[in-house]
Amino acid sequence: MANAYNAIQGRSLERLAALSDGIFAVAMTLLVLDIHIPSAEHVHSEVELLHSLGGLAPQWIAYLMSFLTLGIFWAGQQTQLNHLREGSRDLAWIHLGFLFTITLMPLTTRLLAEFIQFRLALVLYWINVLLPGAMLYWSWKHVMKHGLVKEDTPVDVRGAICRRVLIAQSLYAVGAALCVFNNYVSIAFIVLVQLNYAIAPRIGKRLG
Amino acid sequence: MANAYNAIQGRSLERLAALSDGIFAVAMTLLVLDIHIPSAEHVHSEVELLHSLGGLAPQWIAYLMSFLTLGIFWAGQQTQLNHLREGSRDLAWIHLGFLFTITLMPLTTRLLAEFIQFRLALVLYWINVLLPGAMLYWSWKHVMKHGLVKEDTPVDVRGAICRRVLIAQSLYAVGAALCVFNNYVSIAFIVLVQLNYAIAPRIGKRLG
Amino acid sequence: MANAYNAIQGRSLERLAALSDGIFAVAMTLLVLDIHIPSAEHVHSEVELLHSLGGLAPQWIAYLMSFLTLGIFWAGQQTQLNHLREGSRDLAWIHLGFLFTITLMPLTTRLLAEFIQFRLALVLYWINVLLPGAMLYWSWKHVMKHGLVKEDTPVDVRGAICRRVLIAQSLYAVGAALCVFNNYVSIAFIVLVQLNYAIAPRIGKRLG
Amino acid sequence: MANAYNAIQGRSLERLAALSDGIFAVAMTLLVLDIHIPSAEHVHSEVELLHSLGGLAPQWIAYLMSFLTLGIFWAGQQTQLNHLREGSRDLAWIHLGFLFTITLMPLTTRLLAEFIQFRLALVLYWINVLLPGAMLYWSWKHVMKHGLVKEDTPVDVRGAICRRVLIAQSLYAVGAALCVFNNYVSIAFIVLVQLNYAIAPRIGKRLG
Repeated sequence: MANAYNAIQGRSLERLAALSDGIFAVAMTLLVLDIHIPSAEHVHSEVELLHSLGGLAPQWIAYLMSFLTLGIFWAGQQTQLNHLREGSRDLAWIHLGFLFTITLMPLTTRLLAEFIQFRLALVLYWINVLLPGAMLYWSWKHVMKHGLVKEDTPVDVRGAICRRVLIAQSLYAVGAALCVFNNYVSIAFIVLVQLNYAIAPRIGKRLG
Repeated sequence: MANAYNAIQGRSLERLAALSDGIFAVAMTLLVLDIHIPSAEHVHSEVELLHSLGGLAPQWIAYLMSFLTLGIFWAGQQTQLNHLREGSRDLAWIHLGFLFTITLMPLTTRLLAEFIQFRLALVLYWINVLLPGAMLYWSWKHVMKHGLVKEDTPVDVRGAICRRVLIAQSLYAVGAALCVFNNYVSIAFIVLVQLNYAIAPRIGKRLG
Repeated sequence: MANAYNAIQGRSLERLAALSDGIFAVAMTLLVLDIHIPSAEHVHSEVELLHSLGGLAPQWIAYLMSFLTLGIFWAGQQTQLNHLREGSRDLAWIHLGFLFTITLMPLTTRLLAEFIQFRLALVLYWINVLLPGAMLYWSWKHVMKHGLVKEDTPVDVRGAICRRVLIAQSLYAVGAALCVFNNYVSIAFIVLVQLNYAIAPRIGKRLG
Repeated sequence: MANAYNAIQGRSLERLAALSDGIFAVAMTLLVLDIHIPSAEHVHSEVELLHSLGGLAPQWIAYLMSFLTLGIFWAGQQTQLNHLREGSRDLAWIHLGFLFTITLMPLTTRLLAEFIQFRLALVLYWINVLLPGAMLYWSWKHVMKHGLVKEDTPVDVRGAICRRVLIAQSLYAVGAALCVFNNYVSIAFIVLVQLNYAIAPRIGKRLG
């Protein structure tokens, strides 16, 4: 009976995609809720307002970095789902795990913005970049093993998806390790890696 | 006239699925909003930060459990909708009732995190697990009775969906009853049942 | 040029439906954010917790009523969109106006919960029920006039949609007028009308 | 390898549309969260409630203007996507940039509502209207250059989309410049331009 039920459960790739888009949309929009603008009572001139907005720099940095992170994982998950022939119950739960780590992103972002010089905050943030990557890696291994990939997916693409995750995650790990020097060095490195994946595929050709 | 209108109202399964995905996405992402990280004013070292994050344990537990609950009900509802030939006005309202209980989940989660040792909080949380299950049970009885199920749905699947709800809800009720000993025992039991449904279908084969 | 542009702008019914589902999903889930559970500092026993949850009665009532309102308008808008052959730029803006009034619903709900005995709060809430109804009425008049309705839509359905809005809104207006006696009488009447539309279509046959 | 991966990444227009609808839906609904209704403790009569709601005028104005802004950009993006034959990795990132500026809208709206007489708040708001326009302009130039436009798109439409953005943005810039006189003049002008695009296409024919 459980067999019969599991065989039919959670197989809709469309529903999975729609839930994912919803969660990414909410997470991306919630990030900005955590930027606390000054209240009118404490700000008496335009210059003061400019200064207090500038004082929110850690929040702006964390916000920008997290939006990039979410965009990269959204594009990465989409690329996988686009190449699937069908879904499965186990795949749905792997992706629910992936989405769980995505919902944590506003939390670790807030933590990093509040404690931008604490290594613990940076390491927790990095774990929140590592986990969705690990879930996507697991997801692709799973669909390869269970033959869920569309037949017209070229062989070099099949391998490229896993390599891509491994190389990107290695670079993020190097970035996180740089916090032994300084959190800002670490963040700058991670953002550069992200921008490379997002907007500079030409440089990306050499890095992977 | 009302007949004519009711015959045409609310029949789109696509719209119902999209609304459901949206509500699940928002509810899953809002859960994390209730985890209140400490503010920088009260935390002066990395060790203090680690301690205060550890002190949020009830919130982490409630968050994880609720994400699992939402994932299970999302997969359960999806399984039903995937097997429907068409929707109906009454079905739309049964599922709006189901979604109403889903929107309550962030509230009962917050309540449980705040009062994790109060039996009342646990019982209210359990009611919030019972109600969506009851709505899904009602939904399946309704579509069976009114012939809304796709014709290619195997007979054993038709029965499996209701049995699945009954067995899972019995286990949750046992879990909730364990609060006569201790809320943590109760929560641990419920999370184990959930993990069984989510990630361990092989063990699940024996339990149902 | 503007002509050329307006002819092609905003015509996708799918996008309109998806935006609507998103807005309804967020509004339905946000309602519950406004129910403020007591904090553990002020509650020292299970009985006290039960009492303070009971003290939130106005919030529970407003929450339930607003969920019903949103469900009714979601079903009503869906019914219209399901019967459209194609969209248009003007229709998109009529529905953006409709969605604007939907986004106001969490606000007027909060207002009613906070000031449940003030007639002003009730009248503002009623205006927030009247406005989406008026927009849906306008929307249907618009699609009838511009021939956007699917050709297979029966003639009696075409008229039923407008009559439905008029009768429901008349009943809501009667309900709102009852606040000259007491806000609770008013709310009870409105909720009964809503429940009639949602769960008791058999009685509804007689009322409209 | 990166080539192979980039060729397949992020090409689903459906996913891009769904993410966009989600972000617009959340942003539109969040706007209203920033309208802080008075609490019952400080309001003792219906007249007082009316006065304090009236005192929120800057928030109402900012809310209405931002909903119009979001509606205009939603319709504008939709118009582009409706005319695309296929997506691409670069296009997905241009639109993620566009969506990034959309998620900033609740923030700059809150800023403008809080500091409605500060030119800095108005200029930042205007930048938040300029940036999504610039991204949409870039997006259309990109799809024209890379042949992603559907073949049946009329030639006059192809040009109209870019001209539309340029004319609208010029008018917004004029509106923003009016803040050298007074922020309210500036806001009134911008809202008039928006209403022209939203509800008065007949006048719009002359303006462009």
